[in-house]
Parts: sequence; structure tokens; C-alpha cells
Amino acid sequence: MTKRSEQEIVETKHVTFDAVRLENGSRFGPVTIAYESYGELNPEKTNAILVLHALSGDAHAAGLHHGAKKPGWWDAMIGPGKALDTDKYFIICSNVLGGCQGSTGPESVDPKTGRPYALEFPFITIWDMVRCQKELISSLGIEKLLCVIGGSMGGMQALAWLARFPGHIRGAIPIATALKHSPQQIAFDEVGRQAIMADSDWKAGRYYGGPGPAKGLALARMIGHITYMSDVSMGEKFGRQRKGTAEEFKFNAADFEVEGYLHHHGENFVKRFDANSYLYITKAMDRFDAARGKEFSETLQGTKARVLVIAFKSDWLYPAYQSKEIVKACKLAGVEASYCEIDSTYGHDAFLLETKEETQLISHFLKKLYYEYEVTGPYEL
Amino acid sequence: MTKRSEQEIVETKHVTFDAVRLENGSRFGPVTIAYESYGELNPEKTNAILVLHALSGDAHAAGLHHGAKKPGWWDAMIGPGKALDTDKYFIICSNVLGGCQGSTGPESVDPKTGRPYALEFPFITIWDMVRCQKELISSLGIEKLLCVIGGSMGGMQALAWLARFPGHIRGAIPIATALKHSPQQIAFDEVGRQAIMADSDWKAGRYYGGPGPAKGLALARMIGHITYMSDVSMGEKFGRQRKGTAEEFKFNAADFEVEGYLHHHGENFVKRFDANSYLYITKAMDRFDAARGKEFSETLQGTKARVLVIAFKSDWLYPAYQSKEIVKACKLAGVEASYCEIDSTYGHDAFLLETKEETQLISHFLKKLYYEYEVTGPYEL
Repeated sequence: MTKRSEQEIVETKHVTFDAVRLENGSRFGPVTIAYESYGELNPEKTNAILVLHALSGDAHAAGLHHGAKKPGWWDAMIGPGKALDTDKYFIICSNVLGGCQGSTGPESVDPKTGRPYALEFPFITIWDMVRCQKELISSLGIEKLLCVIGGSMGGMQALAWLARFPGHIRGAIPIATALKHSPQQIAFDEVGRQAIMADSDWKAGRYYGGPGPAKGLALARMIGHITYMSDVSMGEKFGRQRKGTAEEFKFNAADFEVEGYLHHHGENFVKRFDANSYLYITKAMDRFDAARGKEFSETLQGTKARVLVIAFKSDWLYPAYQSKEIVKACKLAGVEASYCEIDSTYGHDAFLLETKEETQLISHFLKKLYYEYEVTGPYEL
Repeated sequence: MTKRSEQEIVETKHVTFDAVRLENGSRFGPVTIAYESYGELNPEKTNAILVLHALSGDAHAAGLHHGAKKPGWWDAMIGPGKALDTDKYFIICSNVLGGCQGSTGPESVDPKTGRPYALEFPFITIWDMVRCQKELISSLGIEKLLCVIGGSMGGMQALAWLARFPGHIRGAIPIATALKHSPQQIAFDEVGRQAIMADSDWKAGRYYGGPGPAKGLALARMIGHITYMSDVSMGEKFGRQRKGTAEEFKFNAADFEVEGYLHHHGENFVKRFDANSYLYITKAMDRFDAARGKEFSETLQGTKARVLVIAFKSDWLYPAYQSKEIVKACKLAGVEASYCEIDSTYGHDAFLLETKEETQLISHFLKKLYYEYEVTGPYEL
């Protein structure tokens, strides 16, 4: 195991498909998928792990982009000697279809019209995202992934892999996720969408070239941030610390620390995210149902992949009971599944922050998967 | 006890004070306070109960306005034979200072300028609201209230009465409330305020006569509504019921039932509430600290009033631990306090909905208070 003192410089790559078949039966294209990879694919092509990002994530999961100071969003988990050990495994992470970080999405130019799709972008689903990922790994010559892993919306994609392509994965690790959104989860997404659409600069999605719905998107992000933390973690981080003084009084300045935090993250988000992507992706999450109206256990019948489900105690956006439903469905279907609830106070954000505990759970699970893979060989699908 | 088959027709009354002294030391006036009363004040003036409303409430707590179909917001609790029994007690409810339902607030005309105050309205506090209530009951010739009672922000006012005018109340019933807002509570209020201010029709508060920030205010209300319900109650009420079909796809139409519910309540709220009042009142809640930076138990030293604290198990906006903090402070100060946690699934809304259980708890508490009052006499302050 080599320990490097400096983070690796990585680059985002792109692959373009003429068309992909969407869930609704239509073919859509061209589709470009942005992706990154870390580590080396072994000659047997048995060591590939696909990392699946959450709502606001992207393909840049680890390492540093040239000239950047901040590493990828899951750098604590991906690298030499880390949970997703790049000395052993070949790690791939791609930006989802509908996204805005290099993959085709609503801000991409529609070759038919020469202008951004905006709301003419087709309705896309979590299944469509996963279909594109399947095309991507096929294009890399990989027939079977060692594992798919992701938190939140990434976990939904892991479940979609499990349901749709069970023969192409050895294992799946859905983290802090759900088989389908509850009405509370839908409601939080909907107020975010309404905030974007209420912004007069949204212009029914045709805002490209103009200022765009910055206030609305910032609001959506602020709402999101509250749901990603917990009452306890907010209490510990901010308490009732003031930003202004009690004498000052101005509605549009941060009065408490927590308000300043929300404003800051709202404003920053606008710089890196496309509002229409926010609409499409949250809608894909809300409509997602891993079991497609059936029981998930029926969907899983005959699946040989192993599953590790991770939840966090203080996560009230994706409460642990939703993870337990996944485990129950696996058990009912005879799929080997382990459940681990991490006793964190970080709320939903824990999947990005509790990397020490996650590392222990995940590295062990992967080692076991990989060992079995070597024993049984890669072609037992 | 007379049981009337029809609800009583009630009218909102108004009283105007030349000026009231605000928390910040300044005098502000004229101040009009809208209020209603139900039942009769006894000759000894010992049977008056003050009902304190929440953020979006008003003076119309019970009975019917002439021609109206919907009774006041706590009609299930106020009336002959009900918890706040109008055959026994004289019930008063007033609209808070800063409100928009008859009491002086930001949409009131500033006599100095002849136009609405808008953001020139002074910053007001929960203490200022309570000060106006004290003026109101004095103007009705009442020296000592049998009880003050309210949920949510109404509970904060009950705590403020307890801290500021302990000699003028016999009892206090703070329901589903907190000594002070946690950063999570502040955060939810802040995104509501930001939604209002992000609306281009807000115009820095000078929107009177124009359309006003309808979208922003509706958004604030939608966010509020999510926090007033629970994951379980939303699950039971909406599940994943669709409003549209899976084939239809339009971002600005309700896709799931829960979205339609939020849209509906958001739009309705705009018809009856002033956006600037929403800013002022939520800010008053966020800055409120019943103990004013000290321990609440110190504030309560020597208080003879009795306290009944009620919380609801599924209320995650004002979690039960906050109610327990109130009880603890009372006990530390030697104030007689009872705590009751109602096992409801309704979330924060439970204080408006769990009227059967509340009735049992409250009517018993009031009977005891009233009995003792008759024994000790009204003038033992």
C-alpha cells in the first residue's frame, strides 16, 4: 500500500453516446457523460467500483483538479489505503444524466435547435441515470462491477442497479437512502422547486444567457441544507450565536450565525449548479420507486449480489426506518444483506462526514466481495 | 351548563392606546389591539382567561363571524362545556402587536406619514406583544387573569407573562413551545423570510397598493406547513397519491397530492396574511429568550403561578425536550409545574388538533386553579 503525501491531480473525462433508450421508451441523444476514475482497472476487470453521487454532487469524487484547493466530494473515502482503496480498486464516478457538471442536462445545447434544452429536456428518471452509467462502464470494457455505492440519491441509484442490472454487480452499498420518497421528502423537494419557479428570473426555464433564478436556487439550497443537518448538529455548530448585534435590525442581513451559514451556502450553490437541473433531478428522486409499485422483495428475486445498507441515527430526511425497509426486502428475497446504523449527530450530511466509521464498514465489505470474486471468477454472472 | 346547538356569532372589538412602551425603551403609538371575548366576566373579575395565538393566528379564536362558515381557530376548545368553558370563564383573545388582523402592524397607516409603516414599523418582541395584552386586560378592568394559554408562539407569550407579570396570572399553560428558538427553528423561519424578500414584488416592504409578494409569502407558508406536520401524519394523509398521472409532466402543476395540499395552503394564506407581518413576527419569535440570557429558573424565583406544560410526541418543530426544559426551570424555581406529553402523530399541528386530550388536561387544571382562587380570594397577588 503506497501512501502518497499529496493528493492526486485528476481530470474529468467525457464519453458521448449517439442515443440512450429512456425509461419512457423514447431514444434520446446525443448523451455525453462526464466521469472520473481513480486507480487502475486490473487485467481481469474485476476490481471496478462505481460511485454514485447525490443531488448536488458530480463526477469529481476524489483527488484535485489542476489548480484547485478543494478535493472531490468524497475524497476522504477514495484514495490509496482509504475505504475505496485505489491501490486495489478501480473507482469510477460519473455525473448523472440531467446534471450540470459535464453530463447532458437541461443547460446542454439541443443540436436540433442550437439552443439549450431548458424545459424541452426530456423527463428523466433514476433508471435513466443508471442506464447511462451502464453504457459508460460497458464503454470501459467492464462487464461486471465489484460494487456500486452511493448516499442519498446515490443510494437510490445503487438500488436501481440492484433491481435492473443485478447480474452486473457483485455488491451494492446504498447509504442513507430510501426505496421511494415519503410525502415529507417530496414536500421539501417541491418547495425547493417552487422557490426556483417563483423567481421572476426563471422565465419558464429559458434563462440561459440572462441572470437566471439565483435567488430561487439559493433558497432551494438553504431549505435543503436545513434538512441535511440535525437539530443537534445545528445546536452544536451555531447555537444562538449572533452575527449582528441585538440592537441592529435589518431583515436582509444575517442576524444569527445559522442564517449567515445558510446565506453563504445558498449563494455559493448558485455559482456551480443549474436551476433547471435542480428541477429535473429532484423530480426524478420524487418519482423514483425502486420496486415500481410492486414489493421490492419481488424485484430482487434471484439476485446474487450482496448488499450493505448504512443509515445514520440523526438523519431525519432519510430516516433509518427507510433503510430498514431495504434490508427487510433483501432478506425476504433471500439476498444477503447487512444493516448498520451509525450513531451520528450529523443528520443526513453524515454520509459525507462519518468517513471513519463508513471506512471500517465499507472496506471490510469490499474485501470480502473481492476475495469471493477471485475465488469464483469474474464470469459467474 | 347550557349546550347550544348553534355556534355563537361573535364580533372582533378594538381598543386603542395612545402609546405603549416597547422593550427597546421607546414609546410607540397609537396602538390598536383587536380582540374578541367569549362568556361573561364575573363580578369579582376572577374568571378571565387569555388565549394567546400562534404565528398565523388572530383574535378570532372561537364562534362564528357574521355570515362566516368556518369558526375561530380554537373553537373546539372554547365554548359552553368545552375546555375553556364559556359557562364558567371569560375568555379573551387578542391579535398580537405587529399582526395584520386588526391590531397595529406594518400594514397599518403611520399617522406621521399617512402611509403604511412597512419596514418603518419598529422591531417588536414577544415582550411587546405581552405588554399590549396587559394594557388590554387592564382596560377591561381585570387585575389578575385566571390563566394564560397558548400553543407555539402563543406558548412563548405564556412564558413571557410568567416571567414579566407573574403576579397578574394564577396559571399558565404553554403548549408545544420553547424557552427560545433553536438554530433549526431560526433556520426554518429565515428561509421563509428570505422567500418573501426574494420576491420581486416585495419591493423592500413598500408593496401596499400593489400585488405584494404573493409567491414569496405562499412559499414561506408551504415551508411552514411541512414543519407543522410529521412524517407519519403526512404519510397517512397523502402517501404517494398522485395528483397528475405518471405520463403527464409539468413542473408547475401538482404531481403528488402532498404538493397540491401545499400549493392550496400557500395560496390561501396570501389572502389573509400580510408578508411584512410575517417578517416581524417570525423575527420576534427567533429573538425571544424567555430567560433573557439568564437561567429561566432565576427569572421565575418567587413566582406563585402554577404551570401546565403540554408537548406532543411527534412534534419535531418544537420537540418535547424543549417543553421539558420549561418544566425543569419551573421545578428548580419551586414553581408548581406539571408536564404532559400527548402521544400524537400530528406533529406541531397537534396543539390545534388533539383537542380531546387537551380538553381533559386543561379543564382539570383550570378547575383546580379556579377553585383555589375562590378559596384564597382574587387579591392575593
